[in-house]
Amino acid sequence: MSKAKKILALSGGVGGAKLATGLAAVLAPDELCIVANTADDFIHLGLSISPDLDTVMYNLAGLNNKQQGWGLAGESWQFMESLKRLGGEDWFLLGDQDLATHIQRSALLNEGKSLTEVTALLAHRLDLAPQLLPMTNDRVSTRMVTDQGDLSFQHYFVRERCEPVVSAYYFEGIDGAQPQEDFIALLQDPDLAAIIICPSNPFVSVEPILSLAGVTEHMKESPAPVIAVSPIIAGQALKGPAAKMMSELNMPCSATAVAALYGDLLDGFVIDTEDAALLDEIRAGGIPAKACATIMRSMDSKKDLAREVLSFAEELMCQP
Amino acid sequence: MSKAKKILALSGGVGGAKLATGLAAVLAPDELCIVANTADDFIHLGLSISPDLDTVMYNLAGLNNKQQGWGLAGESWQFMESLKRLGGEDWFLLGDQDLATHIQRSALLNEGKSLTEVTALLAHRLDLAPQLLPMTNDRVSTRMVTDQGDLSFQHYFVRERCEPVVSAYYFEGIDGAQPQEDFIALLQDPDLAAIIICPSNPFVSVEPILSLAGVTEHMKESPAPVIAVSPIIAGQALKGPAAKMMSELNMPCSATAVAALYGDLLDGFVIDTEDAALLDEIRAGGIPAKACATIMRSMDSKKDLAREVLSFAEELMCQP
Repeated sequence: MSKAKKILALSGGVGGAKLATGLAAVLAPDELCIVANTADDFIHLGLSISPDLDTVMYNLAGLNNKQQGWGLAGESWQFMESLKRLGGEDWFLLGDQDLATHIQRSALLNEGKSLTEVTALLAHRLDLAPQLLPMTNDRVSTRMVTDQGDLSFQHYFVRERCEPVVSAYYFEGIDGAQPQEDFIALLQDPDLAAIIICPSNPFVSVEPILSLAGVTEHMKESPAPVIAVSPIIAGQALKGPAAKMMSELNMPCSATAVAALYGDLLDGFVIDTEDAALLDEIRAGGIPAKACATIMRSMDSKKDLAREVLSFAEELMCQP
Repeated sequence: MSKAKKILALSGGVGGAKLATGLAAVLAPDELCIVANTADDFIHLGLSISPDLDTVMYNLAGLNNKQQGWGLAGESWQFMESLKRLGGEDWFLLGDQDLATHIQRSALLNEGKSLTEVTALLAHRLDLAPQLLPMTNDRVSTRMVTDQGDLSFQHYFVRERCEPVVSAYYFEGIDGAQPQEDFIALLQDPDLAAIIICPSNPFVSVEPILSLAGVTEHMKESPAPVIAVSPIIAGQALKGPAAKMMSELNMPCSATAVAALYGDLLDGFVIDTEDAALLDEIRAGGIPAKACATIMRSMDSKKDLAREVLSFAEELMCQP
């Protein structure tokens, strides 16, 4: 019996969670490991909140709100209404069900459990099939340098609705943070068959993961192909500030620019069919590229994209 | 213009909150100060919970659930359902609205505010008319010595449903706790016209307040009459473990025994009309006593009892 091939997906929030869900639907449970960004994590009202881990977890559990793209389906807001009445901070919406995740996570962390252990416990209770890991157990915090000052990521993203103009960003704590050990072990696993960078924000969702000590080195050393899916389609991000940030950081806003950002880390790049005209210039930059439908509005389209990415990985693996 | 007379009420949870509500309805806002027991307070799931302060606050704000006697009217339980699904501790019920109180209190305490300041902020947001004070800003924790071990009060009261047999109890932290300063100032205020011990559990709701340094001394020195309302009617407590505890602590379970517990602290004792036969034996113990309707099932009955207690105080004040 041959050992199962392993697929590693690096994910931020919404877009990454969709592809992770597609991958989970077409792979066996022990074939998939998803590593989520935790640099968006923050302490709010005393609670430890991990937005990307939660978005991936809720999507994999099928509990996500499909209309709004974040949070839980059938969510209620009694807590939030009462908090407003009491004069509490109300810029970050916490649904009644979602709150249980934050309170239980905070309670378990306070007991001394690591974020990895807490994530595994929550994932187990929600019957998640694939493995879900935080990128690190240590605290890393994305800070946005903007025309309205140095802001924490959630203040920029949620409270200020991405309106401040970004001139730079950095990951507080990244130098001292240890990448999660199972993540590093998987990068060195001879059975690793693909490393997929999900269509997440390259700056604030993917770059924190890639900035952890040793991660890009191990990715380059791995025989598994590294394939990124562009979060930019026709010069726009489907969700979030990726396109706005590219423009503010004086980059062309295109799939080609995303490929250039990842550079020699990539063995393959997947863009949307709408951007097929860019295939030649991406390939000219030395990166094998493929165009297919990357907008994931249904479970079928998530599975289709997962299959396209996996077959692209196999193709690249067979090349000399 | 004469200064307003002041009425001080010492309260535990449900029964105390009802009389406090009656007093608030018949007195001007600046005439009433309620001091609540905080020895039931505990940290649960990382949240600072003050059950008696909350019960009094919700009752005074008219937000209390009149059927179940605790918590909020129109409460929902989405959080609790989700917490159960995640394997969280579910023996202490936290409603979605109620949770906002605990989260906001915890957040404000973590900012460095005192429990007095936090209580005042929450009370202000809920438009409370009278002053509501915690008995102390310091941590005091009732511990129950039982046949199932030494239990925190909420473990005994809620998790174990008062089933363990109590042989003793004590208030951890009481020796180092400072009584709330406005409470002590009011006990020394020459305009204080009555000190009312609400019909709360004498052991675990009232005794912690009376055990704070200087409280009984100031009560005895005050010219204001100290009047208690019996929580025991016909040998039974309307709610909670008071009667069960009296029996387990080898006391007769009667209003007379409650009067004897408070002893020479009392200038007057109010019992239910159903116990009118006990008036003579209580008076024989040297305590002026009065019988009236003490069961408070409606706002009218709360106001009626408040008026009875206040007129008894006036009567006692006029005596030499």
